[in-house]
Formats: sequence, structure tokens, C-alpha cells
Amino acid sequence: MTLDLEQINAADAARFVEWLAGTYEHSPWIAERAARLRPFASLVQLKLALARVVREADREEQLGLIRAHPELAGKAMAGGTLTAESTHEQSRAGLTDCTPAELEKIRRLNADYAARFGFPFILAVRGPRGLGLSKAEIIATFERRLHNHPDFERAECLRNIHRIAEIRLDDKFGHVPALGNRVWDWAERLSTNSDPGYAERGELTVTYLTDAHRACAQRLAHWMKSDCGFDEVEIDAVGNVVGVYHGLDRSAKRLLTGSHYDTVRNGGKYDGRLGILVPMACVRELHAQGRRLPYGIEVVGFAEEEGQRYAAAFLGSGALTGHFDPAWLDQTDADGISMREAMVHAGLCIADIPKLARDAARYLGFVEVHIEQGPVLGEIDLPLGIVTSINGSVRYRGEIVGMASHAGTTPMDRRRDAAAAAAELLLFVEQRAAAVPHLVGTVGMLEVPSGSINVVPGRCLFSLDIRATTDAVRDACAADVRAELERICERRGLSHKLEETVRAAAAPSAAAWQARWERAVAALGLPLHRMPSGAGHDAMKLHEIMPQAMLFVRGLNAGISHNPLEAITNDDAELCVQAFQNLLDQLAMEPA
Amino acid sequence: MTLDLEQINAADAARFVEWLAGTYEHSPWIAERAARLRPFASLVQLKLALARVVREADREEQLGLIRAHPELAGKAMAGGTLTAESTHEQSRAGLTDCTPAELEKIRRLNADYAARFGFPFILAVRGPRGLGLSKAEIIATFERRLHNHPDFERAECLRNIHRIAEIRLDDKFGHVPALGNRVWDWAERLSTNSDPGYAERGELTVTYLTDAHRACAQRLAHWMKSDCGFDEVEIDAVGNVVGVYHGLDRSAKRLLTGSHYDTVRNGGKYDGRLGILVPMACVRELHAQGRRLPYGIEVVGFAEEEGQRYAAAFLGSGALTGHFDPAWLDQTDADGISMREAMVHAGLCIADIPKLARDAARYLGFVEVHIEQGPVLGEIDLPLGIVTSINGSVRYRGEIVGMASHAGTTPMDRRRDAAAAAAELLLFVEQRAAAVPHLVGTVGMLEVPSGSINVVPGRCLFSLDIRATTDAVRDACAADVRAELERICERRGLSHKLEETVRAAAAPSAAAWQARWERAVAALGLPLHRMPSGAGHDAMKLHEIMPQAMLFVRGLNAGISHNPLEAITNDDAELCVQAFQNLLDQLAMEPA
Repeated sequence: MTLDLEQINAADAARFVEWLAGTYEHSPWIAERAARLRPFASLVQLKLALARVVREADREEQLGLIRAHPELAGKAMAGGTLTAESTHEQSRAGLTDCTPAELEKIRRLNADYAARFGFPFILAVRGPRGLGLSKAEIIATFERRLHNHPDFERAECLRNIHRIAEIRLDDKFGHVPALGNRVWDWAERLSTNSDPGYAERGELTVTYLTDAHRACAQRLAHWMKSDCGFDEVEIDAVGNVVGVYHGLDRSAKRLLTGSHYDTVRNGGKYDGRLGILVPMACVRELHAQGRRLPYGIEVVGFAEEEGQRYAAAFLGSGALTGHFDPAWLDQTDADGISMREAMVHAGLCIADIPKLARDAARYLGFVEVHIEQGPVLGEIDLPLGIVTSINGSVRYRGEIVGMASHAGTTPMDRRRDAAAAAAELLLFVEQRAAAVPHLVGTVGMLEVPSGSINVVPGRCLFSLDIRATTDAVRDACAADVRAELERICERRGLSHKLEETVRAAAAPSAAAWQARWERAVAALGLPLHRMPSGAGHDAMKLHEIMPQAMLFVRGLNAGISHNPLEAITNDDAELCVQAFQNLLDQLAMEPA
Repeated sequence: MTLDLEQINAADAARFVEWLAGTYEHSPWIAERAARLRPFASLVQLKLALARVVREADREEQLGLIRAHPELAGKAMAGGTLTAESTHEQSRAGLTDCTPAELEKIRRLNADYAARFGFPFILAVRGPRGLGLSKAEIIATFERRLHNHPDFERAECLRNIHRIAEIRLDDKFGHVPALGNRVWDWAERLSTNSDPGYAERGELTVTYLTDAHRACAQRLAHWMKSDCGFDEVEIDAVGNVVGVYHGLDRSAKRLLTGSHYDTVRNGGKYDGRLGILVPMACVRELHAQGRRLPYGIEVVGFAEEEGQRYAAAFLGSGALTGHFDPAWLDQTDADGISMREAMVHAGLCIADIPKLARDAARYLGFVEVHIEQGPVLGEIDLPLGIVTSINGSVRYRGEIVGMASHAGTTPMDRRRDAAAAAAELLLFVEQRAAAVPHLVGTVGMLEVPSGSINVVPGRCLFSLDIRATTDAVRDACAADVRAELERICERRGLSHKLEETVRAAAAPSAAAWQARWERAVAALGLPLHRMPSGAGHDAMKLHEIMPQAMLFVRGLNAGISHNPLEAITNDDAELCVQAFQNLLDQLAMEPA
């Protein structure tokens, strides 16, 4: 039978538990406790209630839930412990049809994993799209996760258990996240174009105006026009893909939205792109329904945000705010090709760039959907988060110079150890940032160049990245860190250089727009989680000329980003499209 | 007139000051205070007394002394401030004969230096051999020292002032350090053979059994035989150059001495080699005087100590102690050439290696002269130091694994920052080692592999080197550091690996032999400075079978070693030969 919400809200607890049997492996206590949290306004509310029960269970109960699962490909070895659901899922992944060598590999992984963690490896083998991971993907994930910290890995198992449960519930309720699937499949298709040198290794790298970059633009433009029904689609003078879906009146103000389609080197499939594809899915639905809104929708796939090929980050959104710097045209890439040459080669009309600057009076505002790129939503089992502000940031590159000397012959009190000074600074940054909410400080690069095991470090290079929800908080931290660096070097008799490389102002969300995202998320039956964006986004640039607000989507794998492991589920993508649709509906109902 | 000690000890203070005028530039107060420290038993005692006056002067007096010097090539610009001595020395270095481009370069360096330090750049332009540095050497030194820390650079200027004074005093006293010059010139000549790839860049690299290595052996053997008058000279089955100068009775016990002639990559000219050349100079004098001692002298140039081409450090001295490991023969170098092949290629008789093991009963003991390879003697203005023990050491390579994550989006309390953990460990090592005299601990290699400015470090590699005068002190420190690493990683939720790569036992000097070195140094009129050797030496190996003790010689440039800047003066080399001669004389007078 196919379940529906009305049924499960009305049923007695025993019936409720019976219907949900098999959602969580051999653990009826989860449904029993969730029964008390009824009624559920949406399927996702039920999913969140179940996850909350597990999150609030004690550690032994959580471990019990994990241990209730079979080992991977366990049927062949342990026998008899699999639920029908497990058998079906493992079989779908080909795990019931392994070669002897594969079985032996999995057997060894299971043994190593059990020895390290004391519980079986759990993976939602049907994966983020629900169609099943390949055997190779499963084994690679197994090998990778073997190196996780035990605390983290326990949480990762629980997250996988929730994903297994989500897919099983989708099946029980006959729920197909069709909009999410469309977005997910677009992102997958878009990831097949990658720059030379990376494509061969299966890595995704799309930097400004390479062949792969131009192919992505072409693909996005084609989907907008042919698949989604945008009225006007254009690749503009800097390579932005701009699609317009007119309102009832072609001259009506427009909602501006979008994100970037370039990537970092060996990056993920969703960073940026999700913010183009989600509104595309919304326009597609509107067009399919023949529906026009009282305002136009302008979706922009920004050509450049990451600053990878040229040191000109936010080039795409900067062109819209009138901040394209002509001096950038003379920058050259690693192969000596100037930006000007690259633009001419791509057929872009450089002379028209100034015309791209938007008149803010013609727009309602700017919204942007983005993958979180952090662990927060994953840790609290929430698919969507409301962005309150894009953090202001400042970055430095530093060098501390001491005196290289023999590690055996230089007494401790006669050393000028550059790495020790950098270590002190790193710990100061960590402690200073931890003392203030939503302030982060990172020494991401740290190196003793040509260091030797028996030489006291004479030089140490480091980077420093400080971000906060307000510029004042950021600047106070940066000033303290710089002063501490002075003090450390003075005390240790070292010299140092510190060069500021990036400075970006904080961009708080416009209250009215943040409130629209909050209503949209609440309408889905989801609790609100408000959070700053630690990363910079195109919305930061648009913030300079119009109100803006962002919505975050949970990332898998602890929210890792700028990494091939970056991922989202089709179910989360579905919720994101629905939230965007709700925001569009709210706008449509507001008085002009 | 030529001064002599008797004169200056007897003269009244005014006359003393007058005679020393010009030794220190425009600073008669130095001689005035030194006059009160008479009588001087040796020229070097006078030199040390003058240096002591400067060391004990207050900072303003020291700066006044420095500022009393002209800028480099200053005559051409400032005019009139040069003493006759300065004019003569700068002219000898060609500095009064600069091209306009050179003058412009020096002018800019002088300006930058003055802006940074507030005093003029001072360099003993007659150099460590007294013959004068080239213009190119002077300019390179100038450029290098511009980057020093101000405290260090002030001390470096004072050390150069003492060297300038030393050369002027040598002239005043008609003192020619002939033995030191011979050793210095041998070392210079020996440095002209260098391995391919390094020789072209003017760098010194001599690794086991390369053509350059074999040329050095040939040169040493030739000098021993033809120049010094050793009775027997042989290149043995592992490539050691062994010279024997018989005692009155050819079957008398022998004093064993020597050091290694291989080098690290881009190394210095004295590390190892000095310990071969100094006893060679002694034997040369004995032979020239037709003098035989009641014991034989066996000088060994060890073929291999540094473990550069093959991971078989102390191969040369190990062969003498019977610890040549035949498994080493199958090791291959970076080009895939096995040690066995290299030995056959060099015509060495591998089968005879076991015969190299020495019968300790036939030797009095082992002494070794070595450059300090550290800053201590330089800082206290002493040419020679007495080694009390060669420190025991242990080395590790470590890896800390956390979780890489976005620097902007990962809250401080959710990070697993591998570099922060390494920073904590580094500071623990520093503080733990500093708390115990003659214990040193170093994190010389430190790296976040592929770190990014905006990524929380997920991995950090580091090395650890711990040394102490006793194995117990070393092991207690290592145990504390390992425990702290556990604690840090446990608290931060990280994993780690720590692999021990080297472990060497401490080798305390034999009391009777240390006492001989002490008497030899005292006989020169020098104060005793006892110190452990932080670095390992061939004496560590010989320690396993016979009593040993070492003598250290001051290194210039803050004692830097394993570096082309490694250097000694001819005057210090002279004192070292004299100390060795004194030790030989002591032994000759002891009852058999």
C-alpha cells in the first residue's frame, strides 16, 4: 500500500509503527517515539521527526541502531540478518553479485572498519539521486571513510541511515522528487564538460572562457531556451548566460537571481550551478503551466566568480554592478594568454561590457540559492538554511623569517625558529576567533620551505583568512592578530611580512527578502535555521546595488565543497525548488 | 715597528693604547679598558680581552663602535672618515675601484641597510683567510645580511669588527698563522671537486663514491704521502683514506683520529674535512722536524658519514668498528645504482671489508676535531670548545589527519584542524626541551600538503628531532612529546601517525681524553668552554669500541653548517692545530 499523511496522522501508535516498519533497520523504538510528534504537515516533517528521535536518543541507542545494520555485502557472509529492504538495495548496487576478488576486498574492509570503529560500515547505497551507487563508488567511499575520526564516522553512519530511511519513505509514500531530480540531472550533465588536464582524470574544472566553460554556457543557454521556455536568452559580453521570463507586462520590474557556473580546480558540481538550475526549474514549471507572474524573472549564470584563471573574482556579477575593471583585460593566465585575448577568442564584445551594468530601479531585488559548503545543516539534519548575512572577509599571505640553524647544535634559547612563531600565531588566531560567535579565522597554508628534519626553521610561510558577519568584528580580529604577530616576532627576534590579498565587506541580508525565504521554508513544514554565510557569493556583489538574500541547501559528506565529494540529494533539491516557488508566489501576491 | 707580548705587557697604559691605535676604529676606550686586563700570555689572549671589553660594554658604546666605521666603499662618497687601515683594506678588496654601476648598487645597499638598522654595514673585507674577499663576495654578503634580524645583525657587525681587529693585530705583531693557512688552503683545494649538477653551480656536494668523492680520496692520500710524510697511506675497502705515521716503535699503540670527507648536498668545506686536515698538518710538522713520538698516529678520512647517496650513515667509521652491514650493498641510489655496483666501479674489494674492523687494544683512543656547526662559540667570542658528550638523538616523521573543510563556512567549534594540532605539538616540544639544559627538540619540517588559503587544514606533515646529552633525558622528552600528541589529537578529534626513523645513543667523552683537550686549550691561553655536541659525528661510532673525545672550532656566520656559508678563519684553524699538537705532546710525555 502507498501511505499518505492523513492516514499516518490519524492512525493509532501501533499501526503507525507497523506502517513504518523497515524504515529504520530493526529499530521500532524510533517510530514509537516519533508517533508522539504527530501530526506531520508534510513528508519532510515526518523525516525530520524520525531524525530528531535518533539525534535525541542516547549514545548506546544510536550505536544499537548502527549495529542493527548488516555489514556491506553481508548477506553473502553473515546470512539471515538482512531486512527485505537491505537485500533489495544491496542487490540493486550489484553487491550480491561480486567477484571473489571484490568480495575479498569488501571482507577486508569490513574487518578493518569493525576493528577501528566497533560497528558496521553504513552507506545509503541508493545514493543521493536514489538510483544506486556503482560498486566502484561504494568501495571508494568505504576506503575513504575508514580514515575518518570515530566520532565523525558515527555521525556519518547516522546520516546515511537517515538517507536510507528517506528513500524508503519516499517509496512508501509514492513520493517522486521530480523537480529535484531534474535539477540534480542537469548538474550531472553540466559536470561532463571540464578543462583539459582535469577532464582526463574525471575531475571537474571549469575556468573562465575555456572550451569547457563555453560549452557550459552553451548548454545552459540551450536548456533555458528550449527546455524551460525563457523568453529571452543571451550570452552577454563577459560570458554570463542571461535568461529572462517576462512578467504579465514585459516592462514590469524583474526579480534578479542566479549564481556562477565556473568552478574551482577539481571542484564540485553544485557550488554556484545549483543557484542557476533551481530558478530554471521554477521557470520551466511556470512555462509548462502557461503561467505569467506580475513581475519578470531574470536568471543569470555568472561566468566567473572563483578567480581561478585570472585574479578577477566576481567578474560576472561585477559586470552587472558596473564594477568590471578594464585593467583586468591585460591580466594573463598561466599560459600567458591575456583576458582580452581570451574574450576575443570567445567572440565576446568587450566594448559592450559597460552596457551590462544594471539599473537597480528596474529590479525587485536579488536572491541566490547556494549549497551550504559547510557542515552545519548536515549536523542538525536540516535540508535548508536561511542566510542572515554574507560574512565580510580579509585575507593575508604572511612570511616569518628567523634563522635556519642546526637542530642538534643550536640551544633552545638561541633559536630564531620561524615555524614556532607561526605555530603561536595559528593558535592565537584559533582562540581569538573561537571567542566570538560567527567569527572564523584560518591558517590554511603553512609551510617551512625546503625544511629539513635536522634544521631549525629559518622561514615559514602561512596564509590567514578571517571572516565575520560584520566588518567591525572582522577588523577587530585582524587588528589583534596583526598585533600578536608583531609581539611574537619581537619577543622571538624574528622579522615578518604580512600582505593583504583580499578584502570584502559583509553583506547582511535585506530584512524583507530574508523574511520571504523564511516564510517559504516554513511553508514546507521545515523549522527555520538562520545562519551567516562564511563563503563569499555573487549576492555580495549585487548587494552593492540592490537588496539581496540567500537560501542554503545542505551538502552531503559533512558539507565538503571545492572538492569532488561535494553533493546534495534529489530530495533536498526538490525542497529547494519548492521553497523558490513559494518565494515567487509570495512576491506575486504582494501589492505592486 | 712590530709589537711583541713582552712589550705590551710592560708598557704603561697610554703607550699600550697608542700601540693598539687603529685596531678598533676610532674607539680608544677599548684598548684603555683592555690595558687593565694585562698581562697577556698569548696574542689570542689579547684578542679575547679586547672582544670581552666590547661584549661587556653597554649597548650605546657598542653602537658607537659600529657607527665609528665608514660605510662600505664610503671613501668615494662620504670622504675623510676612513682610517689608514680602512682605506688600505677597502682598496685591497677593489672597493676604491668600482664601476659606476657597482657604486650605485653599493650606494643603494648602504642606504637600505642604514634605513633598516641605523648603523653602517661592517664586513671584515680581508675575509676568513686574510687575503681579501672579492667585490662579488662582498656585495653578496651585503645583500644577504640586509635580511638579518637587527639584534643578530648588530652582533654580526661586532664579530666582523673583532675579525678586522684580529687581522690588524696579526699585522702589528707580525703573526702569520702558517699552520692555519695550510689547513684552510687544503680545505679550499679539496672543495674544488664536487658532484655533477652541483659543481656547475659552484656548490659543494661530495657523496659516496662519485667521481668527485674518489678525487677527494686521491687528493687526501697524495697530500698525506707526498706533502706530510705519512709512512703508510691507503684507500681501504670502503674508501676510507688511512694514513699512518709510525711511532718510535712501529708496533707501538696508535692514536686514532680523523673525520669524514663526504658532504651533504650543497654543504660546507669544513664539516668533517677539518678533522682530517688538522692532524695531517700536525704530522707534517712532526715529519719536517724528523720527530717520532712514542706512539703511532693513524689519521682516517672517513668515506661516508652523511648518509646522502645511500641510507647508510657512518659507513666509513662503522667499517672500523665492525658494523658494516652487508645488507647495505643492495641499497640503490636515486639512479638505481646499487652500493655494490658503486664499490666495484671504484675498484674497492668488498670481500676485505670485514678486515677493516679495528682491534681496540692496539689503540690509545680516538680524538676528533670538528667545526662546531652551531652559534655558541661565535656568540661568546671563543675559537675552541671542549666537547663533553655527543648527544643521543631520536627522529620521527609524523602526520596528523583531521578534516579539510571550508574556511569560511566551518564554525571554529566544528573544525578538525590538523595544522592547529601540529602547532600545539611544536610549541610543546619547544617548551619541554627548553626546560632542560642541553636538551633540544625541533620540528624542522612542517607542511599542510596542498593547503589553500580558504581551506581548514585536513592534513599536516611534520618531523621531530630530539637530542640530549644522555639517552634517558632524550627518551623522557620523546615519551612526553608522544603522550602530548595523543592528548592533542584525542581532544581535537584527530588521528595521527608517528614513525621513528633514527635512534642513536649518546656518547659521553672519555674523561681522560676530555682532560687532555682541556689542558691543550688552556695551554694556548684560552678559557675553557665545555659543551655537548648536538650533531652526530664519527666519534659516536668509535665510541662503541674505544675512548673518544672531541674538540670544536668556531664557525663563522653564526655557526651555520650544511650550507655554503659554513666557514672558519685561518687564525682559528691555527689555534686548533696548536691544540692538537699540544695533545700529541701531552700523550708523548705520559708514562706508557
